[in-house]
Amino acid sequence: MQIKKVKVFRVRNENTEDEDFVAVEEPLEVRTCHEGCQTFAIIMRTPGNDIELTLGFLYSEGVINSIDDVSDISIISENVVEVKLRKPVEVKIRDLIVNSSCGVCGRAFLYTLNILKCNTKIRKDVIFSLPEKLKEHQKIFNLTGGLHAAALFTSSGELTYVYEDVGRHNAVDKLVGRLLIDRKIPASTYIMQVSGRIGYEIVSKGIKAGIPIICGISAPTSLSIEIAEEAGVTLIGFLRGNSFNVYTHKERIVLISK
Amino acid sequence: MQIKKVKVFRVRNENTEDEDFVAVEEPLEVRTCHEGCQTFAIIMRTPGNDIELTLGFLYSEGVINSIDDVSDISIISENVVEVKLRKPVEVKIRDLIVNSSCGVCGRAFLYTLNILKCNTKIRKDVIFSLPEKLKEHQKIFNLTGGLHAAALFTSSGELTYVYEDVGRHNAVDKLVGRLLIDRKIPASTYIMQVSGRIGYEIVSKGIKAGIPIICGISAPTSLSIEIAEEAGVTLIGFLRGNSFNVYTHKERIVLISK
Repeated sequence: MQIKKVKVFRVRNENTEDEDFVAVEEPLEVRTCHEGCQTFAIIMRTPGNDIELTLGFLYSEGVINSIDDVSDISIISENVVEVKLRKPVEVKIRDLIVNSSCGVCGRAFLYTLNILKCNTKIRKDVIFSLPEKLKEHQKIFNLTGGLHAAALFTSSGELTYVYEDVGRHNAVDKLVGRLLIDRKIPASTYIMQVSGRIGYEIVSKGIKAGIPIICGISAPTSLSIEIAEEAGVTLIGFLRGNSFNVYTHKERIVLISK
Repeated sequence: MQIKKVKVFRVRNENTEDEDFVAVEEPLEVRTCHEGCQTFAIIMRTPGNDIELTLGFLYSEGVINSIDDVSDISIISENVVEVKLRKPVEVKIRDLIVNSSCGVCGRAFLYTLNILKCNTKIRKDVIFSLPEKLKEHQKIFNLTGGLHAAALFTSSGELTYVYEDVGRHNAVDKLVGRLLIDRKIPASTYIMQVSGRIGYEIVSKGIKAGIPIICGISAPTSLSIEIAEEAGVTLIGFLRGNSFNVYTHKERIVLISK
């Protein structure tokens, strides 16, 4: 299943309950076998073409150099691919979700309690204003068109921190690093705005930092919606002009008109 | 340095040599120390805020739980951050560029020779047509607005393979996996088109698969330009409507008008 229907609360001039499709994101466990099997990596991905993904990933990482290095490859259960190799793995492990909770690995974040209890609220018109404010501060993007940004705003819409990076997750890591230095975790009074899509990695980093409201100008994935729901995070997507979609916990949004 | 001026060949109705800014992408080595130091990870990132990035990354990966777990952190040389920890690292290594060549790790791809010798050419008007053709095949994106795609085209513009994923690098891995299965590496007669930005990971995967022409609808990074130049790859960015920018090896583009 590559797409999934979710409930969405569309905020425009009129606000409507609706349904929409989101892209499914799920973890794939890649197991490599040579005199015994082990988990080589867990890749967050869109289900489908798992054999191709596994082979391409192992090739890009230098584990295999041709299809001849593989004696067998099969999907042994949902979200698990096992690869029998003709020689042992010599590269280091790449583990994409080392220490985080996800569908495959169990439930429950340690960090959710703070967020669920957090009663930070934000007005609809303040949310509308975030992308433009972020854009004004995206110095490198404005010159190159090539960077992602992540920013924290107060609930009254003041930009507090902003970081840019070629990697969306790096921009968020920089933000979280700043919060650590400033001893502001859990960052329960802040709203995070990111410049692009809102995948699992972005939302899980935000949850760990205790951020109660996460907004992006593009689409969320199925898994990011699921973990936001569970963790108590208000997840907002397609924030452009005077409209956005709310996927989870819309109770934090104050729907007054200006 | 977060931006860099590069030469660009702008293809429009008129074609012009020009200069433009791109975002700098460089590897950051994160070294962790506790009774001795070791490389914990190499992160491709935009230089700047390396302390924040390192702390946020270590926090997100579960290596540290607060700033108190760090006794000292410093930039010991360009692109190297050393973190002294109060307790040993207990999570697995996340190594983002396990086995690939980059600025920090040395020069020269093993895979460049095939590409440099490859004389695949493509007409300007065929390049113009690629984004629209890719979009027609982006089934999930068209429903969700939330996915990246990577496709291979022949030099006459026929779409041969297309894959979608929440992760841009996953879409390319799926493509490369297919090429492995079909024993088509080096893929020296193909053009790769990706839906988003063109960073180091995308171009290095393309180079390893022997693809001579790589196009994206958005910006390349400084490092992707450098490795494309060195490997002999024609790198095309901002491919939208009837225009694109060529950053490297423009000799493969046939500039006839229709």
